[in-house]
Amino acid sequence: MNDKLDGKIYDERIAKCTQKMKNEGMDVILLTKPSNMFYLTGDGRLCAYTLITSDGEVAIGVPQTDKEDVTDLAWFNYIATFEDEVGMLHSIADFFKQFKIQKGVVGLEYTFLTKSMMGMMTHPHAKPEAVTIKDCTDIFSKMRMIKEPIEIEMMQEAAKVAEVGMDAALSSIKAGMTESQIAGEGEYAMRQAGAEGFWRSYVASGIRTRIAHGIPTNRKVNTGDIIMIDLHPIVNNYSSDICRIGWVGKPSHEQVHAFEVYLDALQKTIAKLVSGIGMVELEKTLHGVIQDAGYGDNIFGPSIHGIGINFEEAPLPPGHAFFHGEKAPPPLVENIPVAIGNCGIYTNTWGVRIEDTVVVGKNKPLLLTNYPYDFV
Amino acid sequence: MNDKLDGKIYDERIAKCTQKMKNEGMDVILLTKPSNMFYLTGDGRLCAYTLITSDGEVAIGVPQTDKEDVTDLAWFNYIATFEDEVGMLHSIADFFKQFKIQKGVVGLEYTFLTKSMMGMMTHPHAKPEAVTIKDCTDIFSKMRMIKEPIEIEMMQEAAKVAEVGMDAALSSIKAGMTESQIAGEGEYAMRQAGAEGFWRSYVASGIRTRIAHGIPTNRKVNTGDIIMIDLHPIVNNYSSDICRIGWVGKPSHEQVHAFEVYLDALQKTIAKLVSGIGMVELEKTLHGVIQDAGYGDNIFGPSIHGIGINFEEAPLPPGHAFFHGEKAPPPLVENIPVAIGNCGIYTNTWGVRIEDTVVVGKNKPLLLTNYPYDFV
Repeated sequence: MNDKLDGKIYDERIAKCTQKMKNEGMDVILLTKPSNMFYLTGDGRLCAYTLITSDGEVAIGVPQTDKEDVTDLAWFNYIATFEDEVGMLHSIADFFKQFKIQKGVVGLEYTFLTKSMMGMMTHPHAKPEAVTIKDCTDIFSKMRMIKEPIEIEMMQEAAKVAEVGMDAALSSIKAGMTESQIAGEGEYAMRQAGAEGFWRSYVASGIRTRIAHGIPTNRKVNTGDIIMIDLHPIVNNYSSDICRIGWVGKPSHEQVHAFEVYLDALQKTIAKLVSGIGMVELEKTLHGVIQDAGYGDNIFGPSIHGIGINFEEAPLPPGHAFFHGEKAPPPLVENIPVAIGNCGIYTNTWGVRIEDTVVVGKNKPLLLTNYPYDFV
Repeated sequence: MNDKLDGKIYDERIAKCTQKMKNEGMDVILLTKPSNMFYLTGDGRLCAYTLITSDGEVAIGVPQTDKEDVTDLAWFNYIATFEDEVGMLHSIADFFKQFKIQKGVVGLEYTFLTKSMMGMMTHPHAKPEAVTIKDCTDIFSKMRMIKEPIEIEMMQEAAKVAEVGMDAALSSIKAGMTESQIAGEGEYAMRQAGAEGFWRSYVASGIRTRIAHGIPTNRKVNTGDIIMIDLHPIVNNYSSDICRIGWVGKPSHEQVHAFEVYLDALQKTIAKLVSGIGMVELEKTLHGVIQDAGYGDNIFGPSIHGIGINFEEAPLPPGHAFFHGEKAPPPLVENIPVAIGNCGIYTNTWGVRIEDTVVVGKNKPLLLTNYPYDFV
C-alpha cells in the first residue's frame, strides 16, 4: 500500500463505504476504476477488480503475474488471480458464491464502465442473474471529495512538483521550439522532481490558445505568441493542476488587459473558497468579473472542478456533474481541494487562462500551487 | 485536417462508412471517440461530436472556442457550436431535425461511451425518442484495421521516434535513477524528435518486472535489476509500440535464457505475419515456443494487438476482443499493423518482454520498429 498510509485509514474508509452501501441498499460493490480501488485498498491498477461486501469483506482479483505485488501494496481479505478475461469473470462469480450473494444489489461504476464493459461485469459468468445493478458513483464521489489531512499533504507535494514543471516549461520557451517540446521540458522536470507520472499536458501557442483543449502539436512558437501551459503531475498517487501563461516577445495591450481581468476574477473566486460556499456561487463570481469586463462571450467550460487521486473528480459544477453522471455537489466544506480557473477568456485569435489548485478552508483557502502569475 | 492527407481520402472513407452503415441498417452514426472522428474528418478532439448520415452528410459539433480551428482542420458539411453541455445536446437534436431523422437507427460507440455518457447521448434532448440505438464499434474496427499507404508511412515515422525514445531511455539507465526518471528520458527524447505526445509509458525495474502493467514508480534501480521499458509515441496522430529490456550490472543466466527464448518466440511469430494468417495461429506460435521452453505458466495477457491512431485497436485476439466488446478478427491481410510480443515471461521475481510494431505483408512482414534486441 501507499507507504505514507497505514492500514487504519483503509479500515476507516471501508467502514464509511459499507455505511453508505447500507443507505443505498447495496449488498456488494464491484469496482474496476483504479482510483476507487486505490482509495479503498491502497492499490488500483489496470486489469483488476475489487469487491466490497456490505459486511466489509474486501476481495481483490488481479492477473496471476501481479499477486505478490498487490499483496505487498493492498489492504484486503481475499485475493483471486486469473490468466485471462474468462478467468477474471469466473473469479468474480466465485466471490459472489463465497460471500453467498445470489440475489440483492451490486453497485457498479456507471461513470467509468463503457457500455460494453457493463455487459462483461454483468455477464452471467460473473454476476448471479438475480443480483440487480445500481450506480455506485456517488458513494465514491462523496467519500473522496473531502480529503484527509495526509491526502492534503500529498497534494501539497504534487503541487510543489507542478511548480517545478511549470518553471521548467516557462523557462525553456524560445522561438522555434514546438509546443510538444515545451511540454516535454515541463514533464521531464516533473519526473526528475518526483512525479511518478502525469495526466495529459496541454501546451497551446499563438492562435491555438483560442481553443478549449490545447493538446501540444508540432507548431513552432513565434515572436508575439502567447503560450498556454497546463500541467498535472501525479505524486504519491495524488494530482495537482496548474495553468500559466508565457510568451515570446511582448504581448499586446489587449492581451495584457484580458490577462489582468482573468487574474482578478481568479483571485476574487479563490478568496471565497471557505466552508459553506457553493459551486454555483464560485462560478458566478469568476464569470461575473469576466462578464463585467466585457468578455462575457469569451468564456468556455466549467471554471472549477474537484481534484485528488484523479485529475478531475467530484465536486463538479451542477451542469457538468449532470452531464458526467455525477450528482450536483452540496456546499463545499473544509478540506475539499479544487482546481480553479479552468474556463479561460478566448478571443478569435488568442486566449488566456490561469489555473490553481486550492483547498477549501474553514476560514480561509489554502493555495497549493504557489507559482508567480507574471505575464509581463 | 492532417496536412499529409487531402480531402479525397476523407471522401473515400465516408463513402466506405456509409456503405457499411447501409449493411448494418444504420441511418446515422453519432461519434464522440476522438480517433474515430479523426479518421473520418481529419479532426478528433475532446468535448466534440460528429454525426454521419447514411447519405454521407457529415456534421460536427464543437465548443464555440474551437470553431475556427476545427474548420481549418476537418472535412465536413455542417458545423454547430455550443457553450455548454446542454447546448451540446440541443445541437445534436437540431442535426437530427435538419437531416429529417426522427425514426430509424443511430450507431453509437458502445466500446467508448460510459454507461452514463450513453444516457446523455440518448437523452430526449439529444436523440429523437423513436430512433433506436445500435453498436457501431465494428464498422470502425473493420475500416481502420487495414491501413492506407499514407497511414503506414506515418506509422513508420512514429516507429522512428519510438527508436529514438528507446535509445534515450536505455542509454540513461544507471543505478540510483527512478523508473519515472528513466521514462522521462524516453518521453523527452520522443517529444524532441517530433512526437506530439505519447500513450502511457511503462518502466518497471527489478522485482517490479514481474507484473503485467509496470507503470513507472519512484523505485530506484539497483545493480542486478532488469529494466523493462515500453514506449508508445504519437506522431502525426499515429502510434507505434516498442518494448525492450535494459539492465544494471549483469543479468543472471536464467534471465538471459528467458530473454533468448522470448526473442526466438517473437521472431518466429513475426515471420508468420503474412496475408492470410489468423490471430489465433500467431498467438499459438508465440506461446508455443515459450511453452516448449518450459515457461508455459509464466505468460500473461494477449500477445498481439492492432495499432494505428489508437495505441491498442482492432484486430484483437478473439478472447480479448470479446471482453472489450469487439468482434473476433478475420484472418489478417496486407497492411494491418500489429504490436506483437505483449505477453511476456513473468517469474516470481522478474520478467522479460520484447515488443515490436510490424505490418502484415503480402509475402513478408514489414518491421517498423528497428531497434537492437541486445540484452547482454
